[in-house]
Amino acid sequence: MAGFDIIRTARAILHVTDLDKSREFYVKALGFVETEADDNHIYLRGLEEHIHHSLVLKKADQPNVEVLSYKMRSEDDLEELASFFEKDGFQVKWMEEGTQRAIGRSFRVQDVSGIPVEFFAKMETVDRLLQRYEMYRGARVQRIDHFNCMVPDVEKAYNFYIEKLGFACSEYTATEEDKIWAAWLHRKPTVHDVAFMNGKGPRVHHIGFWLSDPMSIIHACDVLASIGYSPNIERGPGRHGLSNAFFLYLRDPDGHRIELYTGDYFTGDPDFEPVRWDINDPRRQTFWGHEAPDCWFKEASTVLDIQTGKPIETKEAALAQHKPTFVI
Amino acid sequence: MAGFDIIRTARAILHVTDLDKSREFYVKALGFVETEADDNHIYLRGLEEHIHHSLVLKKADQPNVEVLSYKMRSEDDLEELASFFEKDGFQVKWMEEGTQRAIGRSFRVQDVSGIPVEFFAKMETVDRLLQRYEMYRGARVQRIDHFNCMVPDVEKAYNFYIEKLGFACSEYTATEEDKIWAAWLHRKPTVHDVAFMNGKGPRVHHIGFWLSDPMSIIHACDVLASIGYSPNIERGPGRHGLSNAFFLYLRDPDGHRIELYTGDYFTGDPDFEPVRWDINDPRRQTFWGHEAPDCWFKEASTVLDIQTGKPIETKEAALAQHKPTFVI
Amino acid sequence: MAGFDIIRTARAILHVTDLDKSREFYVKALGFVETEADDNHIYLRGLEEHIHHSLVLKKADQPNVEVLSYKMRSEDDLEELASFFEKDGFQVKWMEEGTQRAIGRSFRVQDVSGIPVEFFAKMETVDRLLQRYEMYRGARVQRIDHFNCMVPDVEKAYNFYIEKLGFACSEYTATEEDKIWAAWLHRKPTVHDVAFMNGKGPRVHHIGFWLSDPMSIIHACDVLASIGYSPNIERGPGRHGLSNAFFLYLRDPDGHRIELYTGDYFTGDPDFEPVRWDINDPRRQTFWGHEAPDCWFKEASTVLDIQTGKPIETKEAALAQHKPTFVI
Amino acid sequence: MAGFDIIRTARAILHVTDLDKSREFYVKALGFVETEADDNHIYLRGLEEHIHHSLVLKKADQPNVEVLSYKMRSEDDLEELASFFEKDGFQVKWMEEGTQRAIGRSFRVQDVSGIPVEFFAKMETVDRLLQRYEMYRGARVQRIDHFNCMVPDVEKAYNFYIEKLGFACSEYTATEEDKIWAAWLHRKPTVHDVAFMNGKGPRVHHIGFWLSDPMSIIHACDVLASIGYSPNIERGPGRHGLSNAFFLYLRDPDGHRIELYTGDYFTGDPDFEPVRWDINDPRRQTFWGHEAPDCWFKEASTVLDIQTGKPIETKEAALAQHKPTFVI
Repeated sequence: MAGFDIIRTARAILHVTDLDKSREFYVKALGFVETEADDNHIYLRGLEEHIHHSLVLKKADQPNVEVLSYKMRSEDDLEELASFFEKDGFQVKWMEEGTQRAIGRSFRVQDVSGIPVEFFAKMETVDRLLQRYEMYRGARVQRIDHFNCMVPDVEKAYNFYIEKLGFACSEYTATEEDKIWAAWLHRKPTVHDVAFMNGKGPRVHHIGFWLSDPMSIIHACDVLASIGYSPNIERGPGRHGLSNAFFLYLRDPDGHRIELYTGDYFTGDPDFEPVRWDINDPRRQTFWGHEAPDCWFKEASTVLDIQTGKPIETKEAALAQHKPTFVI
Repeated sequence: MAGFDIIRTARAILHVTDLDKSREFYVKALGFVETEADDNHIYLRGLEEHIHHSLVLKKADQPNVEVLSYKMRSEDDLEELASFFEKDGFQVKWMEEGTQRAIGRSFRVQDVSGIPVEFFAKMETVDRLLQRYEMYRGARVQRIDHFNCMVPDVEKAYNFYIEKLGFACSEYTATEEDKIWAAWLHRKPTVHDVAFMNGKGPRVHHIGFWLSDPMSIIHACDVLASIGYSPNIERGPGRHGLSNAFFLYLRDPDGHRIELYTGDYFTGDPDFEPVRWDINDPRRQTFWGHEAPDCWFKEASTVLDIQTGKPIETKEAALAQHKPTFVI
Repeated sequence: MAGFDIIRTARAILHVTDLDKSREFYVKALGFVETEADDNHIYLRGLEEHIHHSLVLKKADQPNVEVLSYKMRSEDDLEELASFFEKDGFQVKWMEEGTQRAIGRSFRVQDVSGIPVEFFAKMETVDRLLQRYEMYRGARVQRIDHFNCMVPDVEKAYNFYIEKLGFACSEYTATEEDKIWAAWLHRKPTVHDVAFMNGKGPRVHHIGFWLSDPMSIIHACDVLASIGYSPNIERGPGRHGLSNAFFLYLRDPDGHRIELYTGDYFTGDPDFEPVRWDINDPRRQTFWGHEAPDCWFKEASTVLDIQTGKPIETKEAALAQHKPTFVI
Repeated sequence: MAGFDIIRTARAILHVTDLDKSREFYVKALGFVETEADDNHIYLRGLEEHIHHSLVLKKADQPNVEVLSYKMRSEDDLEELASFFEKDGFQVKWMEEGTQRAIGRSFRVQDVSGIPVEFFAKMETVDRLLQRYEMYRGARVQRIDHFNCMVPDVEKAYNFYIEKLGFACSEYTATEEDKIWAAWLHRKPTVHDVAFMNGKGPRVHHIGFWLSDPMSIIHACDVLASIGYSPNIERGPGRHGLSNAFFLYLRDPDGHRIELYTGDYFTGDPDFEPVRWDINDPRRQTFWGHEAPDCWFKEASTVLDIQTGKPIETKEAALAQHKPTFVI
């Protein structure tokens, strides 16, 4: 591997059509901390985060995903990674410091699947509110955890992230022909920083945020329902077979999917063998056997071209089967 | 009201086709305490129960419900209640002490809807295992809580239990024409000892057992899935809008439905006004908006005739609508 | 027993020296609902309560307990009980409707130990906020549960409440000479509505409020500590041996002791045998073996004379031993 | 930093005087998985661990700590680290593969404070039982998390682990003169792999194991008390101010201290600033303000000389103050 160190999933920029409606959902209902806002942006973070934000809501006409950003160990790592991408034929777009609120120099690139990704090493720091329990609301979101992307060719994404970017695989789903249907990849030693699932894409399926314990998810459901967001609860709560995490999937007012997630395991040992799941194992998705709704399999957020700002065209999935058939 | 005091829901007798399979489910997976067993019966209780059993599994060819039993304050109350039934034209069948394991004299009667019910005042007591935490397994079932019956004419059942037997109503579901579609009735000051739902009947929809907290339900799901019972998880976990309890519905190996239930509220004040829910309120069933599966609405256990031991014939429901239409 | 029905512990009136400081503690930190307030009172209730209040904070120069109130089934029961007290030689003080905010006619009496108690049948009803989860704060207090009183002669109190007022005993602590050192008595079928402990008295040891689950107590500790109330956490959290409840003891800004309490068991069966605890059993107080601090044994709130409004003189305890000696 | 990568805290070897008593405590009460045992050893692991063991109980006359072991990324890293120690004047003792059950080649060394530590790269792998929920017992221990050592000169240990071994500091306690009184150091991105506290040493204060959620700690207390281990509960449960984790301290049958620990936060960002706690902050130890008992400050396990197998002589602490004085 080259000499660069991607630390972790760091932030996402979501285009939303109504900042007030989004604030109601993310801040009032889910308990995100609003670090700062202006006419066109709301900068959000979780309660334990010491950095300026992990989620940017940006006013736009259409609800797209502008970019998914990763944090690098240093500016040198950042340079090194940019060189790697350029040598490999990717078109890198640098964003100088000052271009974006609170972060240093960064570059963006359309990854091997066409997902717009960004890398940076520096972000303004702020007070951590981890022990300001009197400010805990709703889901008490602690920190960003992972991205989940729907792509037409998972093996291509898998190979690129593992072999070129230095990710490791914790778990994966295999088809009957032993093709990789989905894969969970990590840099930090948790189950994932990014997952790729077979499907029409490139699209962003969801962004996952970490909670401290299962009862925070139960309480989040109760609060969401109390203030009228029960239609936004798409799937769960439940236990994932894959990852063993306790989860809840929500749709924000623009349809972006958010996962509340707690409880995976340590994956930092180099001798950890990726866990293989058969695509038809009924416990893979929800350990308890619940099926996910069709919309969870079909719907995802459109992503933008980093150069033109236009939606990226999607392709149909390489593998035919997109929803498990449960033969119980 | 006449001079008798029905204390609470006390026990049920379920006919099951394979005692070993039932034991695996109830004792090993759910954590019921097995007080005693013989070739044809298993007597089960919850961890806090000081009485011999709250559930009897009885070997039979067909999976039916033999009877639902209530506990009376005293033998005098028992006599008084029997007299009332007889005066009201019901055919009472006395079971002398010694006829049934561990309970005193009792009588059985087909209630106004045809549900086989039983009343007794005395049951052998045993050690409570409430603080024997090392014996807690699976769902850590604490005690029996309620019966839920599907009947063709809920208002008839409602009127009888309220006006004749002295139950009070905590919550109910009303149709658009303000008919009672379902009602939750109690003697002990919780949400219910018995509920009646509109449907083909008389049938027993489920028997509810009390757990100490929501995490016991989450753990029960995990344990059930671990040992292959995920197909037996029918609905939930979730929060009921009605009752506010946290719940899980299971189907036992014979298809009898068991509810694990925790967290309702105090209903003992005479000035407590029954809570009215509109049948189309999406938060009524599951506060978080989840729909119950069709089988939950259609399937229920057949009940037996207390005289003949044969299945009671069922009638279609009086009210047409049996599953809420969610217009969200 | 005479023809009156005391339903349950209903409310307490605490004299506090600074209403603003009390509001910070009860409303902001603990999450009580403020139904109403005027210059001299704050009326509080729990999230599930459908009645106007279960706790009155009343501005005064000294932090005393004015009265502990119980709810009666009807006005007839109220009359009946007053007659009983009068016949038994107690001096009853009637408070006509309109004298006190939100409640109907009541009477007060100094009970057999000198504790000022009150009985009423009617209180204004208000909206229950049980499912307004977005309003849940701090300890998410659900409802009042019980009173705990320190009296010099527990057996006298025990006999009076059991034989004259119709309470039942769920659990008790016995000395080596088999004297009743403390007793838990109930009308509603939980572990208690009132407990009496051997000690200098009459004084009120604490008022217990019910929470929905153990994690609410953990969260309450976190919130209390976050906003500077850690010195107010006196004992716990822990599991009571006696009652099996999960508990936390707090001291309010005036030193009144509040218990947050969750998880006891059903006591409504007439054949339920009171549980006996040896005073030197180390698991009696805290099942896990933790000792209570000395202040918990020695300090309690002074109570007032219902006629004069002056503090009631206290006597030393009849039984010498007031704190268990753990010989582990 | 040199070219070696210490991944994480991996295992400890405790000398115990009675294997059967230890098994009762660790396996039956706490729920450790017993991978294997022989006449002189019990090999234990947590439910999520894919390696042979994280704790070895070894039969001996005296209850000492033989060694604390860390996992290296590869055999090359292991060699590199050994060279570093040797160059720095430490006496390294190699243990060839086959010498110890289930692990590859390792070396041991007395660290800068005299703590016996060991490094290895390879351990036999076994089945993870993370989703075998039917096997969950007691505390449902998930994995080893950290070591805590009492040393006379914390700054010396701090400097060595940070500057020479590449650890990072997440939090620390400072005296009034701004000396480091205690420090939490990590390799994996959690609060710590090892902590050093000012005190008579070198001694091992405790070994910390990770649980999945706070309710597992509550349940562990209940189970421990049920089977007679309440005297073994030394401190907690509570919330640490420092680390924010929810904790419980136990003493095993030989007096070794075990911490059950859940819920710290992500520390992997290089720009994470160590959190400073004043030694007299009452919320540092227990966020809720509870004092730790004296024994927690004074007692710890003796460690052995890796060459002679004899107990290492201890020295008094460099800093006078060893228990915070709370001036609340």
